[in-house]
Amino acid sequence: MDKKDDLFSRRALRVPRSFIREILKVAGQPDVISFAGGLPHPGLFPLKELGAAMERILEERGPESFQYGPSEGFGPLREWVCQRYRRRMGLDITPENVLITTGSQQALDLVGKVLLNDGDFAAMERPGYLGAIQAFAFHSEAILQVPLAADGPDIKFLEAAFRQNRPRIFYAIPNFQNPSGLTYSLEKRKRVAELCRRYKVFLVEDDPYGELRFAGSDLPPVASFMEDGCMMLGTFSKTVAPGLRVGWILAGETVLERLLVAKQAADLHTSTLSQHLVWQYLTMYDLDEHIAAIRKVYGRQRDGMIQAIRRTFPPEVMVTEPDGGMFLWVTLPEGCSTLELFERAIKEKVAFVPGAPFYVDGGGVNTMRLNFSNADIPDIDEGIKRLGHCLDRYLSTLA
Amino acid sequence: MDKKDDLFSRRALRVPRSFIREILKVAGQPDVISFAGGLPHPGLFPLKELGAAMERILEERGPESFQYGPSEGFGPLREWVCQRYRRRMGLDITPENVLITTGSQQALDLVGKVLLNDGDFAAMERPGYLGAIQAFAFHSEAILQVPLAADGPDIKFLEAAFRQNRPRIFYAIPNFQNPSGLTYSLEKRKRVAELCRRYKVFLVEDDPYGELRFAGSDLPPVASFMEDGCMMLGTFSKTVAPGLRVGWILAGETVLERLLVAKQAADLHTSTLSQHLVWQYLTMYDLDEHIAAIRKVYGRQRDGMIQAIRRTFPPEVMVTEPDGGMFLWVTLPEGCSTLELFERAIKEKVAFVPGAPFYVDGGGVNTMRLNFSNADIPDIDEGIKRLGHCLDRYLSTLA
Repeated sequence: MDKKDDLFSRRALRVPRSFIREILKVAGQPDVISFAGGLPHPGLFPLKELGAAMERILEERGPESFQYGPSEGFGPLREWVCQRYRRRMGLDITPENVLITTGSQQALDLVGKVLLNDGDFAAMERPGYLGAIQAFAFHSEAILQVPLAADGPDIKFLEAAFRQNRPRIFYAIPNFQNPSGLTYSLEKRKRVAELCRRYKVFLVEDDPYGELRFAGSDLPPVASFMEDGCMMLGTFSKTVAPGLRVGWILAGETVLERLLVAKQAADLHTSTLSQHLVWQYLTMYDLDEHIAAIRKVYGRQRDGMIQAIRRTFPPEVMVTEPDGGMFLWVTLPEGCSTLELFERAIKEKVAFVPGAPFYVDGGGVNTMRLNFSNADIPDIDEGIKRLGHCLDRYLSTLA
Repeated sequence: MDKKDDLFSRRALRVPRSFIREILKVAGQPDVISFAGGLPHPGLFPLKELGAAMERILEERGPESFQYGPSEGFGPLREWVCQRYRRRMGLDITPENVLITTGSQQALDLVGKVLLNDGDFAAMERPGYLGAIQAFAFHSEAILQVPLAADGPDIKFLEAAFRQNRPRIFYAIPNFQNPSGLTYSLEKRKRVAELCRRYKVFLVEDDPYGELRFAGSDLPPVASFMEDGCMMLGTFSKTVAPGLRVGWILAGETVLERLLVAKQAADLHTSTLSQHLVWQYLTMYDLDEHIAAIRKVYGRQRDGMIQAIRRTFPPEVMVTEPDGGMFLWVTLPEGCSTLELFERAIKEKVAFVPGAPFYVDGGGVNTMRLNFSNADIPDIDEGIKRLGHCLDRYLSTLA
């Protein structure tokens, strides 16, 4: 630790800078085809509708949309979120169960603050969402990853981890997980709920992608198999627009009250304008219709990417084929390094995210994440072709 | 600790719910005249201008304003903040020294995360900003308050506190402090800087109200007397609009890099739309002209409140008379309780914030904060009259 490092708290020194956000800088160069970010397709933002909603807000609410607001969030928006859960999932909740957050990333920070002591284990999936690794690492030094199989967490491993390490929380993305694109089966959902109950592990169920399903049918959330000891996170980032930074936490009132204090201390409240704008948009337009349009486009982009991969990737490279979400997960043969591949790919003007940052234990060196939501099909074709060539040449150097 | 409390982290259990936000609920009833909140006057929000700026954004930037953005903040806005410091204070900085935050409340949370270890002392003013008490309490259990005199901190106390407790940071609002309205003299600014340097205490200088000066002339920031070991916080909440939640941190690059990691983990980035909107407004209109208008109105409201107080408050009640900002600080005779007064006042439909929450040591029971920026002069006259009557009757019960 040099002299400069004396300045910083221990927690600040142990949290890694987001490797993904570093990569996005390289990937953002204009001639690079990027499958790196987790960005929605900007052509799908309901721009005209948001513009009309904005006009209405300025007319009808005026200064209120620019004033300080309640830390819990804008009342009618909490009501809307509540109603949607009641309708989609039949959950018996009230708006008092909803806390509006500055994107669902903030929810992870608040969860860490309120539920984790330094030294407590926080359990999550392996590979797992990098933003959660970062957020939890600020509040606990012990992150424990549970391997994902094609149908959800390795249950034997999960039970052993719960029994031996007694984690405080299990953070899960059961639908079209980031980064793997995998979805828990119904059976695994029940088993996870059962184990959380048995070992008193608080379930933090995140669902940013659940509405982006192109095929198959919705499965009930893991939390629906629990009475308490769980919360659900949600966001408008993938259905309306991420730049507004509006998400939410659905939780029991005792937990929500503590989260509210953390929210006050974190940023007083989420942008009033963003909240009013989202609510006005939801009130004036049919979100389900808009989501149907997103699903159609992303479904085509996913198909395009998978077809291009079948055409151009060497057969020893494995790829997940998710029914929704924004990501494919690619596994190269053992001994390969996607970091080395990245160096080659960026020279060929194509970018992705190497898998290693999604593992806290140095694993995943031969994996990578491909985003299919942000690029149009011609770019997907061209980018996958370039990546296929890089893979061919890279694998041949190892042979 | 009951069974429910087992669930929560130690830090969550030690941070108090914001008493002020509780009070605001009572004070928000339509027939109550409230001097409780720290709200800007909604009539001064540049609504028409913000509407025009919004139109321009939708036309010229389109989807970019709704997409994910860089954690550091929107480049042109960082540049604007940098230029303003260069122009107003002659500081030698670049946009790389600016991190955009979700209001300056978030800056306090990031500071706590990055600079405070549990067990480190965090020093601040007594009375001190409640939001800072909350934010720091999540990251350190040891908050140390340094009494404020009319011209700034008690220097003897400050030096003894620095020497004995070696706090990591000193958090200061040298201009029109919240809650007291007090301003540091030039001499005190130099002494505080000197002591921070000597005892290697990192200075966190917050300045939400500095531009709201009605009389006298600007004084250089404390940080201007330091080479390093300091940062400055700022916000558009009091000059443009608080509901947008846009603030910033100005700091050296080493510190900013750590803050950036904390920012990524906290909410990825501040609302893109809010940042674009503020920047577009600043580019299309003259902020200084707008600030001049705010100063004029708040100056009149302050005068109105002080005159009304002179007319109606008992002479043994002391009031600060600040040259700017949004608050007066009222001290009742020893033995009085502004909590008791609050019970009476709310029955008479007038509200304020009792002083106790601004003290971590149980002090300040006989003090209260009055906000003069949010109410119009007729309401100020009527509200102060009601409060004067309450004071008369309350003091007579104690005599």
